[in-house]
Amino acid sequence: MSTLAFLTDFGVRDWYAAAMKGVARSIAPQAALVDISHHVHQGDIAAASFILSQCWLDFPAGTVFVTVVDPGVGSERAAVALKAEGRYFVGPDNGLFGWLGRKVTRCHRITNEDFFRDNVSHTFHGRDIFTPVGAHLASGQASLEQVGPEHGELVTAPWPKPEYEDDRAFGRILYIDHYGNAITNLQQTALEERYALSGTSVSLHPRRIPLLKTFSDAPAGTALAYFGSGGLLEIAVNGGNAAQQLDLRLDQHVELVLN
Amino acid sequence: MSTLAFLTDFGVRDWYAAAMKGVARSIAPQAALVDISHHVHQGDIAAASFILSQCWLDFPAGTVFVTVVDPGVGSERAAVALKAEGRYFVGPDNGLFGWLGRKVTRCHRITNEDFFRDNVSHTFHGRDIFTPVGAHLASGQASLEQVGPEHGELVTAPWPKPEYEDDRAFGRILYIDHYGNAITNLQQTALEERYALSGTSVSLHPRRIPLLKTFSDAPAGTALAYFGSGGLLEIAVNGGNAAQQLDLRLDQHVELVLN
Amino acid sequence: MSTLAFLTDFGVRDWYAAAMKGVARSIAPQAALVDISHHVHQGDIAAASFILSQCWLDFPAGTVFVTVVDPGVGSERAAVALKAEGRYFVGPDNGLFGWLGRKVTRCHRITNEDFFRDNVSHTFHGRDIFTPVGAHLASGQASLEQVGPEHGELVTAPWPKPEYEDDRAFGRILYIDHYGNAITNLQQTALEERYALSGTSVSLHPRRIPLLKTFSDAPAGTALAYFGSGGLLEIAVNGGNAAQQLDLRLDQHVELVLN
Repeated sequence: MSTLAFLTDFGVRDWYAAAMKGVARSIAPQAALVDISHHVHQGDIAAASFILSQCWLDFPAGTVFVTVVDPGVGSERAAVALKAEGRYFVGPDNGLFGWLGRKVTRCHRITNEDFFRDNVSHTFHGRDIFTPVGAHLASGQASLEQVGPEHGELVTAPWPKPEYEDDRAFGRILYIDHYGNAITNLQQTALEERYALSGTSVSLHPRRIPLLKTFSDAPAGTALAYFGSGGLLEIAVNGGNAAQQLDLRLDQHVELVLN
Repeated sequence: MSTLAFLTDFGVRDWYAAAMKGVARSIAPQAALVDISHHVHQGDIAAASFILSQCWLDFPAGTVFVTVVDPGVGSERAAVALKAEGRYFVGPDNGLFGWLGRKVTRCHRITNEDFFRDNVSHTFHGRDIFTPVGAHLASGQASLEQVGPEHGELVTAPWPKPEYEDDRAFGRILYIDHYGNAITNLQQTALEERYALSGTSVSLHPRRIPLLKTFSDAPAGTALAYFGSGGLLEIAVNGGNAAQQLDLRLDQHVELVLN
Repeated sequence: MSTLAFLTDFGVRDWYAAAMKGVARSIAPQAALVDISHHVHQGDIAAASFILSQCWLDFPAGTVFVTVVDPGVGSERAAVALKAEGRYFVGPDNGLFGWLGRKVTRCHRITNEDFFRDNVSHTFHGRDIFTPVGAHLASGQASLEQVGPEHGELVTAPWPKPEYEDDRAFGRILYIDHYGNAITNLQQTALEERYALSGTSVSLHPRRIPLLKTFSDAPAGTALAYFGSGGLLEIAVNGGNAAQQLDLRLDQHVELVLN
């Protein structure tokens, strides 16, 4: 009962995600098919990487993530299949998997056409290459070694790193979710190693926002910072949309200021 | 082969629904995962209740409904697991389940952390509490008795009741679906007990709309009332959008007038 | 492990698709449930037909397609169940299946109420007739012969045919996908039988567009024609939205011009 989990920018109006599932059902009828999201903004590798990074460990070992945000389909970018912490990832090597870093224990370039759909198109490798390879992996009909030769360094993810000074930490907004909550690259565990966080606040120049435990600790309609469900510093408005109300944007600077 | 059915306001762009499914797959790999909807308007308990009330009996006995519309996450509202007509419901006690009324045969407060995900966050109880508890119930690894102590009265659902007079019935619009059809709280069975319905019409002051059997009984582009697939009086425009064309809104008064 | 695949115009905000899945789980608990799309524009039989035609062969033999785009629900249109290339189709006979043509090996009118949900509504045959019949077929609890008498000619699909002259072929835009790519009725195989295609271009009066292999063969931001993943001539803008940038519309004339 393995799992094939799909993450794409295909949307759900057309048949593109469905075609992948039809192929998966044909090859791996025992596997459960789960949608992570098909609503990644077209070609947004950074958002797809972030989404994957926030939920992959909630899936059981053996899960195969078929990840197709592939603006370079048909060009020379490599197709890869890799393993990290017992889970498998299949997709284009365009930055989607760079965040896995040293967690990757094995990485192969996909070249073995035995595992492809007949008649590979130039524009739909999700259906013709990534899903059939993923379904063969999920059903045990292929091993990573069989899909192709070892692959070297993965393309790195386009994520900025936080910076730490004595009395403050500098981060960036990595993702804004559909509630309008902004998620930063400042990790609770990394901050707690370096600082005493009680009474800390967050500066979104020129605004100052208190660091609290959860939404309801802030008066309704007011802004707060908190460590979210992924262990990252987030900015929200209790009962509101922080991105709209505070005019937040991706990559914006966020400063954690110790008192 | 039990079923875990998810109803949330998480949307499908981010990873929130996917994380719940990953947790479910980890605990209950035999269970089928079904989405009811992730598009409830943020925090709209009344809409989520209504959606659940319209489809729960179509699912087989043993189904577990993981229902997470939870504007008070992290605050003091109770988390509950309950049983009605052989189905299970898991979620916050904030009005989501009040409509079940006397159908609830057993209701427990969720307190036993043995069934939680490790590291419960303050903001994502759908992933950390409701899904793992639901998955333990679905797979038979937990009973309602084991999740915590008995829970008293459920918070009541915010639904208005119809009123009946000799020659008319007064109802309200409970839900407007994506077609623009407006569904009221006037039940066919309750009306038929009280009135002879032939030749009846519906008044949406100052408009008068005929009560017909189905869309095609009304001329294209015109309004009709009919008893919908859930046994409730609905208002539609044949081939059109009644909410827009008749300017209908939630909670609006609807009068059934006998002739 | 058969598959029930759903294609509707029900959207995913309300409970309509979920109710169908609940019915399917109740009758055919072994079947996998797959969404093709619930986002067909309301009543758009041509779009639903096209979506189905583009992915049905990717699903394994034995798959049952429950196809409910049914603007005439409650009126006199027939309900049918049919078989083509080992797959089953269930839905209203309103043009949804006409494109299958001679591939249909068996077609029956659905009349046997033994396979219906109790209490068939006038407005929701997807839940009350098509899904339960489909689930009985998927689980082997019904054969096509049992659902009702043989059905004659299917209503034809509303698709224009291409025309071929010595030095050019005349086609139409059948579908515009969510990327803004326009898919025509001009088939690669049919064109290659008739013409030498190298150096060909496509005329969208007064514009001329080169026929290339894939997106990345065109400079970023420029238009191209190519044979898409379904073997049909498509028009796109590399990294852009062709429908918007070239002002394309459904049914628009497209001319393939030989050089």
